[in-house]
Amino acid sequence: YSDSYPSASDPMWTYFSAVAGQDGEVDAEELQRCLTQSGISGTYSPFSLETCRLMIAMLDRDYTGKMGFNEFKELWAALNAWKQNFMAVDQDHNGTVEPHELSQAIAAMGYRLSPQALTTIVKRYSKNGRIFFDDYVACCVKLRALTDFFRGRDPLQQGFVNFLYDDFLQGTMAI
Amino acid sequence: YSDSYPSASDPMWTYFSAVAGQDGEVDAEELQRCLTQSGISGTYSPFSLETCRLMIAMLDRDYTGKMGFNEFKELWAALNAWKQNFMAVDQDHNGTVEPHELSQAIAAMGYRLSPQALTTIVKRYSKNGRIFFDDYVACCVKLRALTDFFRGRDPLQQGFVNFLYDDFLQGTMAI
Ligand SMILES: [Ca+2]
Ligand SMILES: [Ca+2]
Ligand SMILES: [Ca+2]
Repeated sequence: YSDSYPSASDPMWTYFSAVAGQDGEVDAEELQRCLTQSGISGTYSPFSLETCRLMIAMLDRDYTGKMGFNEFKELWAALNAWKQNFMAVDQDHNGTVEPHELSQAIAAMGYRLSPQALTTIVKRYSKNGRIFFDDYVACCVKLRALTDFFRGRDPLQQGFVNFLYDDFLQGTMAI
Repeated sequence: YSDSYPSASDPMWTYFSAVAGQDGEVDAEELQRCLTQSGISGTYSPFSLETCRLMIAMLDRDYTGKMGFNEFKELWAALNAWKQNFMAVDQDHNGTVEPHELSQAIAAMGYRLSPQALTTIVKRYSKNGRIFFDDYVACCVKLRALTDFFRGRDPLQQGFVNFLYDDFLQGTMAI
């Protein structure tokens, strides 16, 4: 029951309630407003609605398109980690990281990927050869959600999964 | 050589050249500008930059993040088909389609998906229970690109594919 009745002493609870509004859950528009106001992007450009929808899709295990309190806390923690990470990599603080720095960051997060996979990813999330914070987070979200989906189908951790077309689409279309 | 030297008599060629500019290829910003000016969205809201990047990613077989002339023509044809489709489904012309209408449209395009897969997809591309043209196209692009990727790994059309983690990510992260 701890999920349904969060402790009133949790300092995040009041904040979450205010963001979520009447329905008690956070949708993409509410998330974007809250992230912009909270200043979590710092001097970086605010999050696009598409990235906010991605963030929700990553955690939205019941596919309601909204986030409850525990998912909200989980996202908050992940976002703070990604921001720390991005700031560490963006050493000249110009708000973007270079393609090779994104590769290094992905490796530092513990993902073991081939050079080709890294190249594909880096190209997809670059604009004119630079990676902005919003796209960096979108990349981290997708990488984590797709890896979670794959691992969920690979309980013995064999490193390969036999996907049926329908299951493959179900897992990848939502992300 | 027909690829490298398109006939000057192709009426699309002059248009493409103007859109592509000096580098002879169309990137996401150029595509967004061109689609907005061409009026292909009609009275629908213009395409987001994210949808434009998705469109390019779908056709961008060499991962340059840009489109050449033949890819441009292919996209143009696909977009026109999707628009026809959307207009046929949006019978009251209010600019959005209902969730069950998206399901019907996906089936009409020839995709055979389970009710669960359809529900997941519809939820992901809805805003307050309605689907806008931009999100409809994003959905069509992803469905087509992910299906192409899956089929490319399933030459015998068995309906299932054994994916290695790295290959799985390479195909899905770019879309
Ligand atoms: Ca930098
Ligand atoms: Ca160009
Ligand atoms: Ca309608």
